[in-house]
Amino acid sequence: MDVSELPAPTGPWSLTDIDPSATPGWSEGKAAGRAHLESLGPELADLQERLFAEGRTRPGARRVLLVLQGMDTSGKGGTVRKVMRLLDPQGVRVASFSSPTPEELSHDFLWRVRPRVPAPGQVGVFDRSHYEDVLIARVRSLVPADEVERRYAAIRDFEAELVAGGTRVVKVLLHVSPDEQRRRLLERLDDPTKHWKFSPADIDDRALWADYQRAYEIAVERTTTPDAPWFVVPAESKWYRNLAVASLLLRELRALDLEWPSASFDPDEQRRRLVDADPLATAAEQA
Amino acid sequence: MDVSELPAPTGPWSLTDIDPSATPGWSEGKAAGRAHLESLGPELADLQERLFAEGRTRPGARRVLLVLQGMDTSGKGGTVRKVMRLLDPQGVRVASFSSPTPEELSHDFLWRVRPRVPAPGQVGVFDRSHYEDVLIARVRSLVPADEVERRYAAIRDFEAELVAGGTRVVKVLLHVSPDEQRRRLLERLDDPTKHWKFSPADIDDRALWADYQRAYEIAVERTTTPDAPWFVVPAESKWYRNLAVASLLLRELRALDLEWPSASFDPDEQRRRLVDADPLATAAEQA
Repeated sequence: MDVSELPAPTGPWSLTDIDPSATPGWSEGKAAGRAHLESLGPELADLQERLFAEGRTRPGARRVLLVLQGMDTSGKGGTVRKVMRLLDPQGVRVASFSSPTPEELSHDFLWRVRPRVPAPGQVGVFDRSHYEDVLIARVRSLVPADEVERRYAAIRDFEAELVAGGTRVVKVLLHVSPDEQRRRLLERLDDPTKHWKFSPADIDDRALWADYQRAYEIAVERTTTPDAPWFVVPAESKWYRNLAVASLLLRELRALDLEWPSASFDPDEQRRRLVDADPLATAAEQA
Repeated sequence: MDVSELPAPTGPWSLTDIDPSATPGWSEGKAAGRAHLESLGPELADLQERLFAEGRTRPGARRVLLVLQGMDTSGKGGTVRKVMRLLDPQGVRVASFSSPTPEELSHDFLWRVRPRVPAPGQVGVFDRSHYEDVLIARVRSLVPADEVERRYAAIRDFEAELVAGGTRVVKVLLHVSPDEQRRRLLERLDDPTKHWKFSPADIDDRALWADYQRAYEIAVERTTTPDAPWFVVPAESKWYRNLAVASLLLRELRALDLEWPSASFDPDEQRRRLVDADPLATAAEQA
């Protein structure tokens, strides 16, 4: 799919202008969309293995960080399950950020985030992230307004630092309508195997829908940069959401121009050690 | 498959008595074995989701730790790729242990391991582990003999502590023959996309094959316990290796008797909040 058609606001914008059931960049429907997602698997896996190999062989190897944000039920967890499964679990690190602990609150908001950024060669996913600290923090006035202001700049600096250190940063806002959220919340309430995903606080947050939408609009406007862009992914069609996020991830991996690491040894010499001078020749012949 | 047929030494034993190309507990061959692995996917995923749900809702939730050991090319990485892909990446944490850094060496050998044990609700995998500190450490005399002796007891205590804290611990030794290792090393040398997996030190270690085998035998004998057992998985058939490890993991998850967490709220009351008193009723109707 053509990810350049995904909404990527760079100035003042409004979430209400974006149709959460649209499928920008993909016009071929659901069945073809699902098939296309599967077809991306081999290239995603190949590029990720090259990245992982770089991580094993080169100090300061590169990495990718995918930040997922969105209202409750917008599908952050489902995206991780369906998209990250295309990659090798060895090279994936998912970090989920829930309410900060008292210890975390006693530090700067980035304190708990820094140790969880992807290691060299890894694809990291943040399921919620440091953006909670300018979203719920703003909507619920958890900190003074000037502290929220300070944080936008702190986030830009933090992400610029990640980029300078060799991390590609891509940020995704999963977009659903209030109606779809109600439907999904009711589904969770109706199914005892989904009760654990529900909290009465989800409905409290829902009551603040407009405030959250505004907080997202401001956060995106203040923190989208050419090197750490935001994309708004309409997320009412789950197959489209998965396809869009996988396509964004693929774009980042392609942009790294990943090569297989070159050998730091002479393969012929090592082959001779194994064939002509194998220390275990006898044992091997007996085996 | 019947994992009770896997070799699980509890006293003095010899690796040479175990055929690395055998398929204990599975007599139906490769195609059926592969199909059986796939068929385990849904139950594995269901149980893992219950475990993850427990992690999200109960302090001190349980966890599973799978320790993978084996000689170079025995298939630790491939096992992670093929087996862990059946699980939700959100609930999986893979930790790879390579040569310790100078800082890690300046601490007790368990210092770098403790922060990487699985969090509540997680399935953790150690690709190599604290066992390196009684394997290569013994074979290459990296520490005095009495320190190696001390470590067996320290490992038993450490794992007993994990078990007491609600972690199920299962340890797997992937077993290949010297002949198969030579074949796999040559394969890596012949394929430039696999050069990153090869190191000349692999052949140096190969020369110490018998010493490593002895170190494995002693380590297994000294650290297998009813609560943290070792299993020796013949690993020359990759499909069998994957099936055996997945079956062991499934056994651990089943043993947890995982229930879906019960709701801490009244679903009917929450449903009324969404249906009769939805704060966004108007917005939802307009959407």
